[in-house]
Amino acid sequence: MGVKEEVITQARKVKESSRILANTSTEVKNRALLAGAQKLEESRDKIIKVNKIDMSEGRKKGLSTALLDRLELNEKRIIGMANGLREVVQLEDPVGEVLGIKKRPNGLEVGKIRVPLGVIGIIYEARPNVTVDVAGLCLKAGNAVLLRGGSEAFRSNQVLTEIIQESISEAGLPGESVQLVQTTDRKAVEVMFKLNDYLDVLIPRGGAGLIQRVVLESRVPTIETGVGNCHVYVDASADIDMAIKIVYNAKTDRPAVCNAAESLLIHKDIASDFLPLIHKKFSENKVELRGCPESRKIISHIKEATEDDWYEEYLDYIMSVKIVDDINEALNHIYTYGSQHSEVIVTRDYENANKFLKEVDAAAVYVNASSRFTDGGQFGMGAEIGISTQKLHARGPMGLKELTSTKFIIRGQGQIREG
Amino acid sequence: MGVKEEVITQARKVKESSRILANTSTEVKNRALLAGAQKLEESRDKIIKVNKIDMSEGRKKGLSTALLDRLELNEKRIIGMANGLREVVQLEDPVGEVLGIKKRPNGLEVGKIRVPLGVIGIIYEARPNVTVDVAGLCLKAGNAVLLRGGSEAFRSNQVLTEIIQESISEAGLPGESVQLVQTTDRKAVEVMFKLNDYLDVLIPRGGAGLIQRVVLESRVPTIETGVGNCHVYVDASADIDMAIKIVYNAKTDRPAVCNAAESLLIHKDIASDFLPLIHKKFSENKVELRGCPESRKIISHIKEATEDDWYEEYLDYIMSVKIVDDINEALNHIYTYGSQHSEVIVTRDYENANKFLKEVDAAAVYVNASSRFTDGGQFGMGAEIGISTQKLHARGPMGLKELTSTKFIIRGQGQIREG
Repeated sequence: MGVKEEVITQARKVKESSRILANTSTEVKNRALLAGAQKLEESRDKIIKVNKIDMSEGRKKGLSTALLDRLELNEKRIIGMANGLREVVQLEDPVGEVLGIKKRPNGLEVGKIRVPLGVIGIIYEARPNVTVDVAGLCLKAGNAVLLRGGSEAFRSNQVLTEIIQESISEAGLPGESVQLVQTTDRKAVEVMFKLNDYLDVLIPRGGAGLIQRVVLESRVPTIETGVGNCHVYVDASADIDMAIKIVYNAKTDRPAVCNAAESLLIHKDIASDFLPLIHKKFSENKVELRGCPESRKIISHIKEATEDDWYEEYLDYIMSVKIVDDINEALNHIYTYGSQHSEVIVTRDYENANKFLKEVDAAAVYVNASSRFTDGGQFGMGAEIGISTQKLHARGPMGLKELTSTKFIIRGQGQIREG
Repeated sequence: MGVKEEVITQARKVKESSRILANTSTEVKNRALLAGAQKLEESRDKIIKVNKIDMSEGRKKGLSTALLDRLELNEKRIIGMANGLREVVQLEDPVGEVLGIKKRPNGLEVGKIRVPLGVIGIIYEARPNVTVDVAGLCLKAGNAVLLRGGSEAFRSNQVLTEIIQESISEAGLPGESVQLVQTTDRKAVEVMFKLNDYLDVLIPRGGAGLIQRVVLESRVPTIETGVGNCHVYVDASADIDMAIKIVYNAKTDRPAVCNAAESLLIHKDIASDFLPLIHKKFSENKVELRGCPESRKIISHIKEATEDDWYEEYLDYIMSVKIVDDINEALNHIYTYGSQHSEVIVTRDYENANKFLKEVDAAAVYVNASSRFTDGGQFGMGAEIGISTQKLHARGPMGLKELTSTKFIIRGQGQIREG
């Protein structure tokens, strides 16, 4: 069987099982999740053993230390995955929620209820814990899932998927509802792009290259996730201590993630006070600033920012800085260069706070808080499957609700339509 | 300027104006809509004159009578379009709706509000009134729109777009926020497929061929609309008179639209009573039945249905008929052949009614009513921009709300995230 037939055969089975999952009670789904948590913990030796093979292959292939770290499964991480599943059990099941019923003048009762999306495809990179996180969320929302992980983690993903499948079967559900693409052949991804008859959505989780490829090439509806060129705008009226705390946190708490800040905009009236202070703090902590000409008049030895810098998602200890005349220039800059992920204003001015909240077009817009909070858990949604940076279907952190759709149900007494 | 540059230049202008539209008050948007309604009525002679040129060209090209009918703009239709805009004025503005604010344990207030999608692309076929309908709905939801109509209606669409643009300008908004692609070159559609930097969504309105092409080729996120292979399942316990009324209405009220029924499923216990009655009613009204072998045992002279018939969206006075053993066979048939649009059960059995509502996976699922009600107006949503048959973003009739997205707004007091 070729790669295409193999992937389609898997997709067909996933789709068939999705019909059963869609009509499964919360209790049974939770039972499968709890079984999964227990089985993961019981199988830790086996998981670690298999993961060691992936790790050793990865070392031979010359994977970076950072990638090897992401690939590693140790006891702590396995318990983390198991507890992740237990947390999903605690989350409210979105399926079946009634979103309103209206009685029409002709007596028809028209209601809208929440239903699973159906079959979700996920393409992701090195971290094998994504396998468990994603499978758990999809299952709780009543969806079947076809997983395609990175080839470096193939063996680890296989053993994790098997554990999840066994747990699902034990709960009396079709184990086939969670499947890992059983080949590392890169062609499998192209096959997934064309699975319109089987997948309801395809979600990429990984770097900008993967995301762009999925968005541009997939014929299956996709949700664009993740790229974050986030700004902090320090307004003239900002509390300087607060601004330093927020900018420093947004840049350095975890620079490699999408909700980290990449660019600092400073109102000209506060720049000569604020810039030297943040520059000092950054210098002590090895953060590089790249500045506009005005900023270099204040601190001459910072590197000049090029046009490319304004677009850059550094994901590193680097930040571009631009001094702006007013909030409108800040808004225009964000509009031009931002990626509509998370944007922050630090201000004490009521009007500017509201203007920023209203006019910035992004998944998350902040007043006086770090952009690092853009996260399903931090927003109180529970675990997330990713952060959408598109406007269709879901925007910002996607939790269980974002893994559902709706359907209209109509109760009549023989009504017909005339004309 | 080539087609590509021309379309991109238009798209850029539409996008620029979308920023203003997104922050425009309901009052100003309504003023533009009312001005549009008045101007349409005042310009009726001009519109009819231009439309006559399209009609005469259409006749020369040999367009069918049906297509020419769709193309025609007369006084009644112009008043209809104007009143359509007035109805949109009456609809509630979805933009700015607060979808909930939560206070997090760290004091952050996390809220979600409704915002416009931004820029909407529409590709549609012969009917020029779509130009006005779509422009009105997009405007009310705060969206700019790039329209690509059928070449047969090009002159009519141009004059209608100009009238809308003038009305928008008079209200103090950028007239460029509604634009018609200014070329009939077919390449323009391919250019639109790649306008990811400018369009937030691309919606096809038209026949199955157009829809499939957009869904499969567009890199811009799309919403699949319209194809409806709808079934009516007559359960063993059905009220026979009601079933005849519903089946007849669902098939014949307007056979050419997507919510018309195409296929009839009959429980075997009621088939010998019901089938002759509906056959008689259909025969008197020139509706052709194509049946399964069991149905042909009851009425031998109906044509045999092939496998293709079960998939067919006839959009004509033809209906396939299949006798099933029970509700499960009906559900399986619908699962296999349906297009997830609108599905009907006629029954007096409480359990079967609920089973059908729960298990059928479609945009609209009915008990004891005609599938013809799947329509934004009939569901009480006001005018609709189309009927989504996909699960992502919107499902079923799409009204103003479905032309919006959301954003998170977060109010803090200096919160930062640690770890």
